[in-house]
Amino acid sequence: MKEQYITLSQGSGGVESNALIEEVIYKILGEIIVDGGEDAGVCDLKGKIALSTDSYVVSPIFFPGGDIGKLCVCGSSNDITMRGAKPRYISLGLILEEGMKKAQLEQILHSIKSEAQKTNLKILSGDTKVVPKGVADRIYINTTAIGELYADWRVRNIQEGDEIIVSAPIGAHGAVIFCTRNEVALQSDLQSDCAQLYPMIESVRDCHIHTMRDATRGGLAAVLNEWSRAASVEIILTEESIPVLQQVRGVCEILGLEALSLANEGVCVMAVPPNESKKVLSLLKSHPLGTHACVIGHISRKVQDINQARVILCNAWGGKRYVEYPQGELLPRIC
Amino acid sequence: MKEQYITLSQGSGGVESNALIEEVIYKILGEIIVDGGEDAGVCDLKGKIALSTDSYVVSPIFFPGGDIGKLCVCGSSNDITMRGAKPRYISLGLILEEGMKKAQLEQILHSIKSEAQKTNLKILSGDTKVVPKGVADRIYINTTAIGELYADWRVRNIQEGDEIIVSAPIGAHGAVIFCTRNEVALQSDLQSDCAQLYPMIESVRDCHIHTMRDATRGGLAAVLNEWSRAASVEIILTEESIPVLQQVRGVCEILGLEALSLANEGVCVMAVPPNESKKVLSLLKSHPLGTHACVIGHISRKVQDINQARVILCNAWGGKRYVEYPQGELLPRIC
Repeated sequence: MKEQYITLSQGSGGVESNALIEEVIYKILGEIIVDGGEDAGVCDLKGKIALSTDSYVVSPIFFPGGDIGKLCVCGSSNDITMRGAKPRYISLGLILEEGMKKAQLEQILHSIKSEAQKTNLKILSGDTKVVPKGVADRIYINTTAIGELYADWRVRNIQEGDEIIVSAPIGAHGAVIFCTRNEVALQSDLQSDCAQLYPMIESVRDCHIHTMRDATRGGLAAVLNEWSRAASVEIILTEESIPVLQQVRGVCEILGLEALSLANEGVCVMAVPPNESKKVLSLLKSHPLGTHACVIGHISRKVQDINQARVILCNAWGGKRYVEYPQGELLPRIC
Repeated sequence: MKEQYITLSQGSGGVESNALIEEVIYKILGEIIVDGGEDAGVCDLKGKIALSTDSYVVSPIFFPGGDIGKLCVCGSSNDITMRGAKPRYISLGLILEEGMKKAQLEQILHSIKSEAQKTNLKILSGDTKVVPKGVADRIYINTTAIGELYADWRVRNIQEGDEIIVSAPIGAHGAVIFCTRNEVALQSDLQSDCAQLYPMIESVRDCHIHTMRDATRGGLAAVLNEWSRAASVEIILTEESIPVLQQVRGVCEILGLEALSLANEGVCVMAVPPNESKKVLSLLKSHPLGTHACVIGHISRKVQDINQARVILCNAWGGKRYVEYPQGELLPRIC
């Protein structure tokens, strides 16, 4: 493939499509592709299967700490992980814009490969479409992950008294994307938290955990508000216990953002029975991704009236305020 | 949700995202969604699993005989079917352009539902992103289908002597999209062939079939050229046996297109041992989608030299020509 830019003809299912697939995609990803050459891949999974799909439209496609390739693998792998499954395979659906630089595509494919290899994820099926210049923004990726279920973590398991654990400082991904996109100079070396959580979660897979969620779009505020409504509970958070990096705090102060609503791509939140929380914390802390894991609050009570299903933030001076479900445009194309 | 158009805030993971999901998506698709409210869906499948992903970027999104919603269900269901599996679940990843009409989205979701219900397909996972006006064209959909394998049809099974069967007249989808997009008045009532093949293929699932493929982008010409290369064989087709609707023939003549290279979305091609071909044909013909199924050629010989792995078209007057692997832009955004 001599062209330096993606062409429309590379999406039409003929000779040029084949060249793109063989000389670019297979050349880079071949090692981790299962069952290539057929329209569907075949795999062998035992027992119950978890499946999760996500489309990635992040802008910019390259950012401090990652790119859309790393992000799509992490995001889909994490969704499966949060459900209590071991991520095993992903599919990869590329929508490319005519005129995209081939070198950028190659860099993204390399990221996909190196991230997938960290957890031995294989690609079971792929698809590439090219759309004319002006009807996409270089590249959108859909990944669907599947894996075998070993636990059954779900929102409805949440109980009064559960402690809320967060695995790492919040808001770095959102802050990085915001600053990069708006050309705000990033303070020091702040990077997206984009990471696969499975290697850490594997260590707590046999613990008694009620539910778990990665705090992506809408951040911690969205997840906890969803939980409070879905499980009809009130959640109380202690403001000073919520880990926020100094650099993220700085970005929030300057730009009037709320760290609780910023997106994360490698941070999870769990509801854990109080008698299990110490054990879970110590296991999380023994993994590099979980060094700063901590309890940030608890499920204070079951509520009858859905309007009482709120998330309340208490500060060190006794002040209280509701953590609102994020509203408005926040940040488009955050993931 | 009062807005008549999709807004950016509906993609940001907060209150408005929730409203879109609950008041539009769940309202229409709720019945066929499994395990809603979690980031990953869980299912129980036995034995080997086939998985296939596809992104749909078709333009226009509504066309005679279907729309992008019907197309995404059919396309992914067919890819699983062609591999010898029963389609069971799909995931649905929507990329919406800010400003898309809500009513169009609703119409597409209704199509998805009604097509999925035909084969009892359920939605196991979903995702909705909204991108700013100008970086998509109203809607792109990714669907990933999974199902249980009952056969092992694959290209490498192809043998010398196999008969090539096509299940229906070719080229209707491509001709319809071409005419609609270029505002060429469609002759009579020509419609896209867009359809799920599983109900027909179910009837031949116990037959001895070597391989099967739906002839989508690049049409029959692409599939047969792929087969000839992948299996190192020469394929001979009899021109007058290839079923082409009169209306499609007309479009091809006027516009200088080749029916063999036009896309299909409900037509499959099979390689079947000669002693099984009669039985397969009669089963196909007993299904409404297969009424015009017929043998169009055969695998004439194994070749040593990959340059001899060609598809040859013979006409009634003894003329022969190569069927080329489609090349060039063909028709962007055909599916």
